[in-house]
Amino acid sequence: MQNSNSFSAKVIIIGNEILSGRTKDKNINFIAKSLYKHGIDLSEVRIIPDIEEDIIKTVLELKNNCNFLFTTGGIGPTHDDITAESISKALNLPYELNLEALKIMEDFYKNKNEIVTNSRKKMAFMPKGSKLIFNPVTVVPGFNIDNIYAMAGIPAIMQGMLNGILKEIKTSVKFYCKTLKILIPESRFALDLQNLQQKYPQIIMGSYPFKKNNIWGADLSLRSTNKVILKKSFTELKKMIEKYDN
Amino acid sequence: MQNSNSFSAKVIIIGNEILSGRTKDKNINFIAKSLYKHGIDLSEVRIIPDIEEDIIKTVLELKNNCNFLFTTGGIGPTHDDITAESISKALNLPYELNLEALKIMEDFYKNKNEIVTNSRKKMAFMPKGSKLIFNPVTVVPGFNIDNIYAMAGIPAIMQGMLNGILKEIKTSVKFYCKTLKILIPESRFALDLQNLQQKYPQIIMGSYPFKKNNIWGADLSLRSTNKVILKKSFTELKKMIEKYDN
Repeated sequence: MQNSNSFSAKVIIIGNEILSGRTKDKNINFIAKSLYKHGIDLSEVRIIPDIEEDIIKTVLELKNNCNFLFTTGGIGPTHDDITAESISKALNLPYELNLEALKIMEDFYKNKNEIVTNSRKKMAFMPKGSKLIFNPVTVVPGFNIDNIYAMAGIPAIMQGMLNGILKEIKTSVKFYCKTLKILIPESRFALDLQNLQQKYPQIIMGSYPFKKNNIWGADLSLRSTNKVILKKSFTELKKMIEKYDN
Repeated sequence: MQNSNSFSAKVIIIGNEILSGRTKDKNINFIAKSLYKHGIDLSEVRIIPDIEEDIIKTVLELKNNCNFLFTTGGIGPTHDDITAESISKALNLPYELNLEALKIMEDFYKNKNEIVTNSRKKMAFMPKGSKLIFNPVTVVPGFNIDNIYAMAGIPAIMQGMLNGILKEIKTSVKFYCKTLKILIPESRFALDLQNLQQKYPQIIMGSYPFKKNNIWGADLSLRSTNKVILKKSFTELKKMIEKYDN
């Protein structure tokens, strides 16, 4: 969104399993929708492998170009969970045991008559100075350091974490969107839509083609942070489209 | 995949609609699976908005770091379809009418008693010197220039295009994968798995947790380009896991 008042976010999906096609990503759309609803502009998503060098490079490249950098994946107990250590290295911070996280886990496992084994304890290691991200599903927290929010990769846990994070972020901007579904192929109205876009540079106009019952149509989507101009341009869009009805 | 003989690929998904959450991506997993089956290592995916500057920057950053750079989206007839022009600018090549593409479209529309309007003609503009990517669905081709393959964003069309592209790419490497599904929580076997990974650095070992009927388990995935070592390490993995059965 071209609005200087809105916050921007970027997302890093960390996981070999997405890149090999083994696992279908289930997090991007949830994050995108949540940020949009919250008035935060998601400007980029990157999917990268579980390789320390790649994580460090990507974190350093993105963190200064957005207000919030979210990561998913790689904070579990196994050897391929290297997000916390990689972010520590990226920020040049000690990778250390967070006592608050350990306490949460100890309390949780005590209730189950279990202990925090060394493998479990690994999940309480994070960059020094991190604030914990509450995990309403399995207790083990994510962490926030600087503008980076490291969340779990398991969708239910990630969703719980993100909902909690967004409750803490106050935004003053709201995105508005209006969509018109039409059964006219794009090539017929493309020029008119372009003219409308030029008339309303504050509005982001998108055309998303689809085929239904062998007929090509499109969803015309108008987005803006300005409700009044959005309404005005949408009225003009509908008028413009009327002339194609025959 | 850590194999110097294998080709590597990167993907750019171009589309505001994915970043706003309006549309759920349906292309990444198909591309990832297809490349994997074809022995091509997908090392990164980026989702970026329909902004010329972002497309140019991303294309230039990625094209020299992989064998094949695939893009999806933004090659239609509307004003927000700016992929072909942006890639032309990135490569410093004229953005011009491709006569072969125009001919394909003219023949197609002639059969339907229609003409190639100016909006349709826009889809035949591409970087000078491009080779066409065959579109088995709606005829309008994608384009290949240098190591960049610009495909449509509509899943059915993208799939047809990619299948055609991959038929032309001969690879000598094959990826092999073996997966073991176990109903043991990760924290119990994490250390043993780490030891196994250290013993077999040629194998990429991943652990992907899940919860089923209130029990935590994991898919243990072993991948390699070496079938013999994969088999050997997988046998050891199964043996290692046996001791947790109780």
